[in-house]
Amino acid sequence: MGNCSQGCKDYFSRQKNTNIRLTLPVVCFVWQIAMIILFGVFIRYDEESDAHWVETKAHDNITSDIENDFYFRYPSFQDVHVMIFVGFGFLMTFLKRYSFGAVGFNFLIASFGLQWALLMQGWFHSLDPQTGKIFIGIESLINADFCVAGCLIAYGAVLGKVSPVQLLVMTLFGVTLFAVEEYIILNLLHARDAGGSMVIHTFGGYYGLSISRVLYRPNLHQSKRMQGSVYHSDTFAMIGTLFLWMFWPSFNSAITDHGDGQHRAVINTYLCLASTVLTTVAISSLSQKTGKLDMVHIQNSTLAGGVALGTAAEFMISPYGALIVGFFCGIISTMGYIFISPFLEKTLKIQDTCGIHNLHAMPGVIGGIVGAITAAAASESVYGKQGLINTFDFTGDFKDRTVLTQGGYQAAGMCVSIVFGVVGGAIVGSILKLPIWGDPADENCFDDEVYWELPDEEEEHQESIPPILEYNNHMIHKQQDLSESNFSVEHCES
Amino acid sequence: MGNCSQGCKDYFSRQKNTNIRLTLPVVCFVWQIAMIILFGVFIRYDEESDAHWVETKAHDNITSDIENDFYFRYPSFQDVHVMIFVGFGFLMTFLKRYSFGAVGFNFLIASFGLQWALLMQGWFHSLDPQTGKIFIGIESLINADFCVAGCLIAYGAVLGKVSPVQLLVMTLFGVTLFAVEEYIILNLLHARDAGGSMVIHTFGGYYGLSISRVLYRPNLHQSKRMQGSVYHSDTFAMIGTLFLWMFWPSFNSAITDHGDGQHRAVINTYLCLASTVLTTVAISSLSQKTGKLDMVHIQNSTLAGGVALGTAAEFMISPYGALIVGFFCGIISTMGYIFISPFLEKTLKIQDTCGIHNLHAMPGVIGGIVGAITAAAASESVYGKQGLINTFDFTGDFKDRTVLTQGGYQAAGMCVSIVFGVVGGAIVGSILKLPIWGDPADENCFDDEVYWELPDEEEEHQESIPPILEYNNHMIHKQQDLSESNFSVEHCES
Amino acid sequence: MGNCSQGCKDYFSRQKNTNIRLTLPVVCFVWQIAMIILFGVFIRYDEESDAHWVETKAHDNITSDIENDFYFRYPSFQDVHVMIFVGFGFLMTFLKRYSFGAVGFNFLIASFGLQWALLMQGWFHSLDPQTGKIFIGIESLINADFCVAGCLIAYGAVLGKVSPVQLLVMTLFGVTLFAVEEYIILNLLHARDAGGSMVIHTFGGYYGLSISRVLYRPNLHQSKRMQGSVYHSDTFAMIGTLFLWMFWPSFNSAITDHGDGQHRAVINTYLCLASTVLTTVAISSLSQKTGKLDMVHIQNSTLAGGVALGTAAEFMISPYGALIVGFFCGIISTMGYIFISPFLEKTLKIQDTCGIHNLHAMPGVIGGIVGAITAAAASESVYGKQGLINTFDFTGDFKDRTVLTQGGYQAAGMCVSIVFGVVGGAIVGSILKLPIWGDPADENCFDDEVYWELPDEEEEHQESIPPILEYNNHMIHKQQDLSESNFSVEHCES
Repeated sequence: MGNCSQGCKDYFSRQKNTNIRLTLPVVCFVWQIAMIILFGVFIRYDEESDAHWVETKAHDNITSDIENDFYFRYPSFQDVHVMIFVGFGFLMTFLKRYSFGAVGFNFLIASFGLQWALLMQGWFHSLDPQTGKIFIGIESLINADFCVAGCLIAYGAVLGKVSPVQLLVMTLFGVTLFAVEEYIILNLLHARDAGGSMVIHTFGGYYGLSISRVLYRPNLHQSKRMQGSVYHSDTFAMIGTLFLWMFWPSFNSAITDHGDGQHRAVINTYLCLASTVLTTVAISSLSQKTGKLDMVHIQNSTLAGGVALGTAAEFMISPYGALIVGFFCGIISTMGYIFISPFLEKTLKIQDTCGIHNLHAMPGVIGGIVGAITAAAASESVYGKQGLINTFDFTGDFKDRTVLTQGGYQAAGMCVSIVFGVVGGAIVGSILKLPIWGDPADENCFDDEVYWELPDEEEEHQESIPPILEYNNHMIHKQQDLSESNFSVEHCES
Repeated sequence: MGNCSQGCKDYFSRQKNTNIRLTLPVVCFVWQIAMIILFGVFIRYDEESDAHWVETKAHDNITSDIENDFYFRYPSFQDVHVMIFVGFGFLMTFLKRYSFGAVGFNFLIASFGLQWALLMQGWFHSLDPQTGKIFIGIESLINADFCVAGCLIAYGAVLGKVSPVQLLVMTLFGVTLFAVEEYIILNLLHARDAGGSMVIHTFGGYYGLSISRVLYRPNLHQSKRMQGSVYHSDTFAMIGTLFLWMFWPSFNSAITDHGDGQHRAVINTYLCLASTVLTTVAISSLSQKTGKLDMVHIQNSTLAGGVALGTAAEFMISPYGALIVGFFCGIISTMGYIFISPFLEKTLKIQDTCGIHNLHAMPGVIGGIVGAITAAAASESVYGKQGLINTFDFTGDFKDRTVLTQGGYQAAGMCVSIVFGVVGGAIVGSILKLPIWGDPADENCFDDEVYWELPDEEEEHQESIPPILEYNNHMIHKQQDLSESNFSVEHCES
Repeated sequence: MGNCSQGCKDYFSRQKNTNIRLTLPVVCFVWQIAMIILFGVFIRYDEESDAHWVETKAHDNITSDIENDFYFRYPSFQDVHVMIFVGFGFLMTFLKRYSFGAVGFNFLIASFGLQWALLMQGWFHSLDPQTGKIFIGIESLINADFCVAGCLIAYGAVLGKVSPVQLLVMTLFGVTLFAVEEYIILNLLHARDAGGSMVIHTFGGYYGLSISRVLYRPNLHQSKRMQGSVYHSDTFAMIGTLFLWMFWPSFNSAITDHGDGQHRAVINTYLCLASTVLTTVAISSLSQKTGKLDMVHIQNSTLAGGVALGTAAEFMISPYGALIVGFFCGIISTMGYIFISPFLEKTLKIQDTCGIHNLHAMPGVIGGIVGAITAAAASESVYGKQGLINTFDFTGDFKDRTVLTQGGYQAAGMCVSIVFGVVGGAIVGSILKLPIWGDPADENCFDDEVYWELPDEEEEHQESIPPILEYNNHMIHKQQDLSESNFSVEHCES
């Protein structure tokens, strides 16, 4: 009983550090007000979403209503939107007591990140030099969602170990870094990366891993009891997995060129992901003595194929090529969970809650390499003369670029994304190490209790299994009389 | 033991009132047969979905297959459909033992309501005077889903306190009232309300609150043990929240004019909702001593921005304008959960299970006001001459209307929706008060047990935690021998 | 205690049979490698997804980007995709301890099946005689998903009673049989079946029932304790139900002719399903003494209307006709669960875990009959001359076919699908009866424990209801001292 009281006291004293009643509201308000001001100064509707569109249409001799990018992109946008909020959110609900944090903080940082992304991407990609305004349309929203994805990937590495305030700071810097590396890779290097193997997954993966390294907690084992899943939390996570898996073809094709490009990106991603599932299951089964499957692999590694085809999905990689990429990604990603993650934790001191190294970082790098090779191997016989120009956008300043050079720039792009991830993550990690952000104590990690008002579970269990427990309670009281025990259960009741 | 038997007897005697074996099937059959007859008399395919379309196309010189409203609206329709069935359904699963009722009765009343809505809206909006028929297409289905949304909002106020028969009656009258107020607001007053701030949310909110007031249960505290959530029920509710949140841009743009109108409605709603999330989190965190977040706020108040932009989403409110609306809605709605809901319950005797006053009624009114102001402030310089005409549909009888007048009619529309909600709800509530509908006793509210065959949970718990409990059972029997207790647990086992 | 040890020994000896560490990885690898080789030989992009599209467009004078089937079909494809993976997967999670198997094996066999389907359907339907290649586009992906649906339906009958290796074998043969019967029905008989009442549901239903008959387990009652649901598993299943229900209009319209055909298929399916919900609720309520609803009916029978309109959805069945079909399907399907399923199990020895006879087989046959009658009753006055030709594709070899003949061929098609299902299932069932596939023992059916690494639940329950149980544990130990019991609980702890 002495131990108990002591434990309770410690518990509450540690709680104090995680009080975010001041910081979280302040950060939310300050940043939201900043967004409003910046949007007021910079953001305007583009011509297709402006009420003057009817005049623009008349001026440009557009007769069909459907000639508005809205109808080409909106279904893809909604699929991507579902991936960001339900896909990423529920994928991370696998922990037994961190579902609120997984889906709730995912919600918070995505909502903030997409606003900041519209500004950052706007300044870098579409600032109108004459008016000084950023004109946004449906494709801007897709790109903002993409940008946010990078930060949500990074969240996977630090899941359960940081406070929401830290997550908002991480997102602010993550989006900023993303916009810069994206500008360098897509505009300066003129690399192609429609589904973001490099720009999104490689960057996001290494950004998160690097932050996690800096925030290394040597005593994380103290919250080991919370680090597992329960049956229903694993089932919730499958909602995330499946929505990511199903809509990944939309992700990789969302901002690709109209027509054959989008069409091809969907076919390639669809096939690649199907192939990944089979090899993931095979390796997962091989890893256990009796051939049982591990939910961690099914939830995550099945998605690696989509990541690895992010760059090459729009290329003429051919259907069997897509299957081959998926084949190896399933193997490598599952092997990663079995062998590499424990190694990273022990040797490099990288604690990677969701295994983003296996799901995003490694497959992202593979995707970059596949993209570089496929680009370098492209030929006029396969693409057609105009098809080659369209696919790689060999126009303007880049109209004389050869496919071999393009392959080189693709590889260069991948290096840029890794460097931005690692270096950026290290710097941001150092900022997040400051003792002002309200992060949880080592023994309270992976526990929603710290940042969420939790429902009173005890009462529920009394509801759902009343007869036995009630009877037991009854027995207990009888028992007490019988044995004259003066142990009092109330002291430890939370 | 005497108490126990008495309790059991009371339990079963109370159960008798909730026997709906006669009423529910009868109501379902009668209403479905009525639907079949009325559809046979009135409903026909419109020309775009009729097999004569190939001739109509030839006659109208339409060459492209895509010139069929199906391709402009179907993706939006499906998003709205998901909101109605998964969004509303799962949003209400938060109670620990009312998930079946939440998602199941939502399913039932939506399925009935949409049929009745097609008829009611058809009679008021698209009855062909020559043939006496209603011609339906994809936009009719969207409107029917919209109409049903009003009743599902009202369901939120009475969740757990009414029988499915009452819900069907409530839906029958709700859809009827909806069609009338919609006709008055959109056709007679010629107000614009694409996303239904007034027509759907304000009406639905006050309709439900008014019914809940009439059905006030002074002894509802008797089922207080069932009124909370459990960990996984809160996670289920987040499925509903997220699908509503993600697809709200589709909701607000689904029936807007093709092209720039839909485009703009999506951008505005997307931004407004993102802003709402941040201020909801801020206020929720402020409301607790240690800054913890409350799932009730995250599940509900994050959606208030979508409601509040229902009218103005298609207007040129500008991106930062949308952010500002979201900013204040998050604050007001969360404050509503903290301060206004308890006040309403204590002072006005309105028991509002899901807090629809904070999520629909208040933000709906805000949306009406925002719409009126934005309309009154519209100018040719912002919209363009033709853009202004298109956006506010200043054609036909209304071609000379000014934006100021339009603002006035918008405000008038909002008053109409409030009056219909409050008065209609009071009348329907009185009907539902009749003692023939099989509603649950005060101590059985919020309990699926009353209307659903529930799985035998006890067995499950024996499965999942067998060693300890089985051992306990074992101990119990040993114990009984030991203490000669003749207490018999069987008497109370359900 | 002697019994206990014996039981434990038996348990582990039986476990040995289910070791799939060799077979599952081998099958996955062999089949995936075979897919890669066959795709390399046969599968190519079709012209709309090939990079030469820009030249094809120029050649064919196509000016609008939107004239690519991608934009007509992709939103429908994604809805169908969600039905296959989330719909079917989650619908089967209702069992208390088979959610991983339901959603995980569904994922596995769908991923394999769709690859094999692309090949099989390609060889039968779209093998280019000149090049010997199969050219795939977005419609091929939809058809592959459709084909897989047949096998997932069959999975419903054997859910929990087979190993993943058996499922893969079942899928290999199932897809093969599907492609043949589909070729006979759609191409040789020239029957119409856009939503697959016959081709998908009747075939899949009888295929699964026939396999289940061959694999009959007389001692299945030994795992009766696992055959029920728990509260949250039933809620998970509703996710599957609702996504199937909402997207069924997309399913029935996905490969229908552009324009009026798709438009009409959506309207009909939407109405039919709404009607089904009401009669399902009515019959479910009638079946219980106090009118309570049964989740099994709500989860399954509400979908029967979509199945039954699979053939006739694109016909001019008229809105009230769709309501009537739904009306009777809800009644028949729910009655099936109440009366026919127990009869099938007792008399015909068909153990049908998910009741696919009531959800797919019977409604599929109804759908075939409705289709035949509606086709035979078609007239030029209703369809228009060209509309009739378009709807029934009376072109080429079939340009002189009358609607009456068409009705006959529709009926013939249904018989073909039944024969393929029953005979094919019997043969495949015999193969699956071989004792090499690692299927579970009778007492381990419906238990994820056999094929999945499960989280350590006990620990969780100690987390969530610690005070009482911990106290009980405490009491137990005190108790042991008291009564000198030397019963040791450790022996049986899993």
